[in-house]
Amino acid sequence: MALLGCGVVGSQVVRLMREQSGDLAARIGAPLELAGVAVRRLGRKRDADVEQGLLTTDAEALVSRDDVDIVIEVIGGIEPARSLITTALRGGKSVVTANKALLAEDGSALYAAARQGGGDLYFEASVAGAIPLLRPLRESLSGDHVHRVLGIVNGTTNYILDKMDSTGASFTDALEEAQALGYAEADPTADVEGFDAAAKAAILAGLAFHSRVTAADVHREGITEITAADVASAKAMGYVIKLLAICARADDGRTVGVRVHPAMIPRSHPLAGVRDAYNAVFVEARSAGELMFYGKGAGGAPTASAVLGDLVAVARNRLTGARGPEESTYADLAVHPMGDTVTRYHVALDVADKPGVLARVAEIFAKHDVSIQTVRQEGHGDDAQLVLVSHRAADAALSATVSSLRELDIVRAVASVMRVEGDESS
Amino acid sequence: MALLGCGVVGSQVVRLMREQSGDLAARIGAPLELAGVAVRRLGRKRDADVEQGLLTTDAEALVSRDDVDIVIEVIGGIEPARSLITTALRGGKSVVTANKALLAEDGSALYAAARQGGGDLYFEASVAGAIPLLRPLRESLSGDHVHRVLGIVNGTTNYILDKMDSTGASFTDALEEAQALGYAEADPTADVEGFDAAAKAAILAGLAFHSRVTAADVHREGITEITAADVASAKAMGYVIKLLAICARADDGRTVGVRVHPAMIPRSHPLAGVRDAYNAVFVEARSAGELMFYGKGAGGAPTASAVLGDLVAVARNRLTGARGPEESTYADLAVHPMGDTVTRYHVALDVADKPGVLARVAEIFAKHDVSIQTVRQEGHGDDAQLVLVSHRAADAALSATVSSLRELDIVRAVASVMRVEGDESS
Repeated sequence: MALLGCGVVGSQVVRLMREQSGDLAARIGAPLELAGVAVRRLGRKRDADVEQGLLTTDAEALVSRDDVDIVIEVIGGIEPARSLITTALRGGKSVVTANKALLAEDGSALYAAARQGGGDLYFEASVAGAIPLLRPLRESLSGDHVHRVLGIVNGTTNYILDKMDSTGASFTDALEEAQALGYAEADPTADVEGFDAAAKAAILAGLAFHSRVTAADVHREGITEITAADVASAKAMGYVIKLLAICARADDGRTVGVRVHPAMIPRSHPLAGVRDAYNAVFVEARSAGELMFYGKGAGGAPTASAVLGDLVAVARNRLTGARGPEESTYADLAVHPMGDTVTRYHVALDVADKPGVLARVAEIFAKHDVSIQTVRQEGHGDDAQLVLVSHRAADAALSATVSSLRELDIVRAVASVMRVEGDESS
Repeated sequence: MALLGCGVVGSQVVRLMREQSGDLAARIGAPLELAGVAVRRLGRKRDADVEQGLLTTDAEALVSRDDVDIVIEVIGGIEPARSLITTALRGGKSVVTANKALLAEDGSALYAAARQGGGDLYFEASVAGAIPLLRPLRESLSGDHVHRVLGIVNGTTNYILDKMDSTGASFTDALEEAQALGYAEADPTADVEGFDAAAKAAILAGLAFHSRVTAADVHREGITEITAADVASAKAMGYVIKLLAICARADDGRTVGVRVHPAMIPRSHPLAGVRDAYNAVFVEARSAGELMFYGKGAGGAPTASAVLGDLVAVARNRLTGARGPEESTYADLAVHPMGDTVTRYHVALDVADKPGVLARVAEIFAKHDVSIQTVRQEGHGDDAQLVLVSHRAADAALSATVSSLRELDIVRAVASVMRVEGDESS
């Protein structure tokens, strides 16, 4: 086998393969042999103890070698990962990858290359790190009908939001702390803007609904605009703000919605207790009911655990002449736009403190056919604020309601708008 | 395929196979055909709409038919399930079973029959109902090193203990309520005496540690002797009593302990929040860290979901000529006796209320080399009680300590003895 990339995850893969070589050989039925490790630069110091002779900068040659039958890709990003994986798969090799971005952009092309070559494509490590989630969705639940997948799939943003919630820190301060501790990268865009979670949501939705879903289908909002005031206000109401990935069938079952955005959830909800950089995902299925999976969603060793689990599976498959599951898109459900998704909004309005304000605000909600579940006035005079929580309605109607509120003369400002999830009382 | 048993689970299997026939065919790549359903009596009214022509009382003939390639066994119990499954497997058929008792008693013989016939043996439904737990252990974590599996795997006892905790009911009253609601059977022995959980613990331990573990290896204690006073006293201390299944490597990694017994866990522990008849299992692995799986551990539809997931897998395997994982016992770890397991005890003693009592009690602990973590005196005079929590020690030493305490003249009675888990501070 060959390893592409020897960074945080790759080093752990090498270390664990060495430490557990006896166990892995017993579980597979044959020893694993590392034929080469493709890296960008040869000289760099690495955590893993890799013989210089195994290192190469020519990844393209490595994945084409006849003595390589399995390729592990942990470089990440679109290129050169896409070309390398495609070459390997077309050449009949099996591929284990942790590359969520590539799978979410172009998973179908990879599956097609695997089918052409006759090898396997496994990617448990691409979503929720060490948590076994894709295999349960692809296999354990293949006799069931999944309604919804909802969870926290990005550890970095969960760490930041958890810090903001527990210490009252601003987004910027919490991000800096996450960066200092290695939870966030120097360029945190992929995490804080929700790109990472959106890629994972696309992968989860594709597997859960047996349909083709790409990152471009996912409605995506990040957490950069969440203020300490938003967090404090949620806290005061018994809620906590989390970045959620939600893949759900529409009520008629004919389309699915796939979205990533911050949302307020009740503190009594199990996802509210997911701290630090942990991940947790609920899967709701017709017969199985509600299932939850919880664990470390990132990090070198946890991700390597998922990679090695896949490695054992594809190695066994090669020995026995078997193949793992192929792409399953027979249901071919369309992804509906965010506007059609049914959600609930929490809206805080800075308003003029005078009689008739609530009537005018309520009229706007009614005009858009949105019912109000709760309303509360806070403060007086220049500090007067109306806090409203809607009943369930189409996101487009809720969004239009907020636009109309902005234009109302008695509304000085829309202080915050946040969706509410996990509180099914309405 | 053939179905053995058409009770609570079997009826749901038939119903779901019918309702989801299109989806199942698409996922497998070929339609499923039900060749026959073996039942004890033909005339009985059933939940499932099974044509009379499919029903038979001759299960032995059904599992030997040439047009049957997959057998689903949901009869339960040792015989006739064992003979039927063995005949089916030796005849080259694949078997999906939910039969924890049989697997825990004689799983190796079934694996051997599967190997002989060349078919598959799948049993996800045998542990924790709909929760995908065995496939993750057998496959997703096959590149990792599991330290411990700990959880609530019996819904009936969890329902009873939860009721006792939330309402103050006695064991007998809570059991009656569970029976009235269908959570407990008329003869509740298998659940309340821990046999069901012990069988599941044996299956989990075998998979987690790649060793042969049978029900006879499992230390088993039920919940019948837990009193309302025990529950109230645990509650007062911030604990809740749960029936736990614990499979853990010894500190030196060379043996494993497998046990089922009630234990006090802190109310802040995630397992404390597992209510009603739900199940939840923690898996702790070297690289993956701590994982949790949560969901419905029993019931017709959830169990049928797990059965159908396995059915899709074995049907796919037959179509592609593949075989699922075989028995993996290469590690061949011995199961150590309960006395060698390191635990902690909570002990409440009715004592004489006079000076020097604590000194004499402490002396007994010291004699057995057990340290005391906390001690508290409650009440006075004839109601005086000493409540002690030990540090970690060998269960044999803790048990011997309690025996010595019973003989002490100043101890009027040992009011309660309970192990403490999930509080790793000591």
